Amino acid sequence: MINVVLLGFGNLNLNLCRAFIDAENVEIKQIYNRNPIKLETPFKSIPFTEDLSKLMEADVYIIGIPDDDISGFSESLPIQNRLVVHTSGAMEMDQLAHRNRKGVLYPLQTFSKHRKVDFKNIPICIEAENKTDLEMLEKLGNSISENTIEISTSKRARLHLAAVFVNNFVNYLYQIGDEILTKEALSFDLLKPLIFETASKIEYLSPAEAQTGPARRKDQKTIDKHLQMLQNSPNSEFYELFTKALRQK
Amino acid sequence: MINVVLLGFGNLNLNLCRAFIDAENVEIKQIYNRNPIKLETPFKSIPFTEDLSKLMEADVYIIGIPDDDISGFSESLPIQNRLVVHTSGAMEMDQLAHRNRKGVLYPLQTFSKHRKVDFKNIPICIEAENKTDLEMLEKLGNSISENTIEISTSKRARLHLAAVFVNNFVNYLYQIGDEILTKEALSFDLLKPLIFETASKIEYLSPAEAQTGPARRKDQKTIDKHLQMLQNSPNSEFYELFTKALRQK
Repeated sequence: MINVVLLGFGNLNLNLCRAFIDAENVEIKQIYNRNPIKLETPFKSIPFTEDLSKLMEADVYIIGIPDDDISGFSESLPIQNRLVVHTSGAMEMDQLAHRNRKGVLYPLQTFSKHRKVDFKNIPICIEAENKTDLEMLEKLGNSISENTIEISTSKRARLHLAAVFVNNFVNYLYQIGDEILTKEALSFDLLKPLIFETASKIEYLSPAEAQTGPARRKDQKTIDKHLQMLQNSPNSEFYELFTKALRQK
Repeated sequence: MINVVLLGFGNLNLNLCRAFIDAENVEIKQIYNRNPIKLETPFKSIPFTEDLSKLMEADVYIIGIPDDDISGFSESLPIQNRLVVHTSGAMEMDQLAHRNRKGVLYPLQTFSKHRKVDFKNIPICIEAENKTDLEMLEKLGNSISENTIEISTSKRARLHLAAVFVNNFVNYLYQIGDEILTKEALSFDLLKPLIFETASKIEYLSPAEAQTGPARRKDQKTIDKHLQMLQNSPNSEFYELFTKALRQK
């Protein structure tokens, strides 16, 4: 049995909590949050504290708070020689306070409050200073996912960068699509089947193989029409940059 | 019963053919293609020709060829006063030859040869010169989809533009993600659960609500690290443009 204390209860730790509850060999000993929160079913029975001096003993302490606060927060923990991990893609493991054993447990996924995700396929990227801790994190990762992998701070940073492109930036393109349709009083729903199929295609084709469109086909007439429709729109910059890149490929 | 002749047999008409075969009130009278093709099951029994002078009579002729060729090809058809439609998002209906009745049947989706798509949820955008033809196209659309809508040439052009953003450009971001990971000898598979979840999120959140990431949070430290990793990469231009736009929102 691995005993876990969750430090912070934002979208990420909330979703980890949901997954650990269903895991056989994990016990959530305690949830800490800076501000009081009302724990609802199925979390009701988990001990909660807003007071760091009342932290319980556990095998792993999992920090799930904004990146910029991780370092300072880890310094403020009144514990020693315990395994303290953060869950950030961008943050170095070494940003954690040295008085505890450091580690990282980074689930490569986007989390929402109101949506329970299935951890089974989510890559859990782990890192630790020593072998025993790494094995513990591996066990913890395996308790919720079929894809736990050791990834160094430097590789994790690149992975996180790639994630920004395929998640944050992709979502921004959805926003642009929404904007274009709203101007025409057309529903964004019209684009959803296309959006799902675009994401599904890479299951059996590489992104390079799946690439289509006017720029890929060098269809200058359509490109010119599109640029004309985008006149005076900041979105024309995106159109031009993608078109240039796709032409050069 | 609606009789259909398919003109051209690329990914789009191939997939329409698959759908029409399963439809109750549609009969595919004939497939024309410029070059000979071997029709395999379940298309074996459909008459095929490479000779335009041998076109059969039908209620609707559906052109599925590259945009640039549509106009000239429709001029070359040795038929008159028939309903001839193209399937392009970007092309005006009026680009079709005037000697036939003009129309458009544009399924808003991306098609591949080796993947059978479910038309049920795909928006079928229709347009015609007269009411009777529009009703015929509506019946035809409804035979395969639950979402047939009348869309003018001008709105269809905007819809197609939006589709380029959420499909072609999104897929290019997948390529960038792939590139970043390949350099680190990491598998693109790691990003797939994130990519699917990003697409799935918009089912219950608007793209604006679903937006996350360092630029949205104005997390300058992470942005600076990312830009440093992208030094000397053409992808830094994308990173800067998205970051600027997300900051301004």
